[in-house]
Amino acid sequence: MYKHILFATELNETKSYIENKVTQLQQLTQAKLSVIHVVEPIPNVYYGGVYGVIPGLDSSDSIGTTRILEERAKDILQALVKRLKLTEQDLHIPIGHTSEEILAFAQKENVDLIIAGSHGVHGLQVLLGSTTNAIVHGATCDVLAVRFKE
Amino acid sequence: MYKHILFATELNETKSYIENKVTQLQQLTQAKLSVIHVVEPIPNVYYGGVYGVIPGLDSSDSIGTTRILEERAKDILQALVKRLKLTEQDLHIPIGHTSEEILAFAQKENVDLIIAGSHGVHGLQVLLGSTTNAIVHGATCDVLAVRFKE
Repeated sequence: MYKHILFATELNETKSYIENKVTQLQQLTQAKLSVIHVVEPIPNVYYGGVYGVIPGLDSSDSIGTTRILEERAKDILQALVKRLKLTEQDLHIPIGHTSEEILAFAQKENVDLIIAGSHGVHGLQVLLGSTTNAIVHGATCDVLAVRFKE
Repeated sequence: MYKHILFATELNETKSYIENKVTQLQQLTQAKLSVIHVVEPIPNVYYGGVYGVIPGLDSSDSIGTTRILEERAKDILQALVKRLKLTEQDLHIPIGHTSEEILAFAQKENVDLIIAGSHGVHGLQVLLGSTTNAIVHGATCDVLAVRFKE
C-alpha cells in the first residue's frame, strides 16, 4: 500500500518506540525507507537547549556552527541507519526550516507516507507538535503521527 | 503492531480512497476495526451546507433535528460497515464535538491507531483539517492522517 516511507526523525528519537513502529510498517508494506533530519540554524539562545552543549561550538560563526550541527546529526543518525538496515544514501540531513524541508523532500522523492513523532521529549512537545501539524497540513501524502512514549 | 484501529469518518468519505487504506491497514495488521462518525449539533445557517438539504428537517426543533442527522448518518454508514465486513456493533455515532468524542472513544476502547482524513471535500478542508489537528494533538495513540484525493 505504501511504496516510499519517509521517517522524519529528531536526534533524540533514536533507539525509541517510534523506531520500532517504522521498522514494523516498513516490513509490513515492503516499502522503500528514507530517513530525514533537518538541521535548523537556530538563535544562540537555544544552544545548550535543543542540541545540548556542544564543545568547540563558536556561536559567532554561524556557517561553522551549522556545519558542526550537521556533522553531529550525521554521527548520531548513522547508528539509526545501521539499525534500520539502510545505507548512507537513505539518510538525508538538509539545512533549513524543518517542515518545509520534509515536505519538499517528500514531494521530490514521491514519498507516500511520512512518519513523524507527535510529541517530543525534554520539553520540546510544543515545537515538535507544531512541526507535525505543519506536515499534516502541508503534505500531499499520508502522515502517521506516532505518539512518543518515554 | 496495531491491535485496535479506529476509522474516524465523514459521511462523504464513504466509498473513497481512504476506505481502501483502512482496509489494507486492517488486513496487514489484523487489528480489530471500529468506525466512528460524530454528529455535531450545528447552527441552522449550516443546514444545506455540511449535511446537504434534508427534507423534513425542522430547524426550530433541535432534538428532532439531531435525531434526523443521526438516523441519516446511520443509513449512509451501514453500507460502509458492510463493505468493511464489520457488524453494527462496530459502528459508533455519538453526538457531540467531533474531536472530543473521537478522543474519548479511543481512550475508553484502547484504540492504538486513529485513521482520519486530512482534507475533506466540498470546501470543508479547513473544518476537517482542524479536527485532524485536534486529534493529532489530543490523542494518546498514533494518528494516521490520510490525504484525501478526489
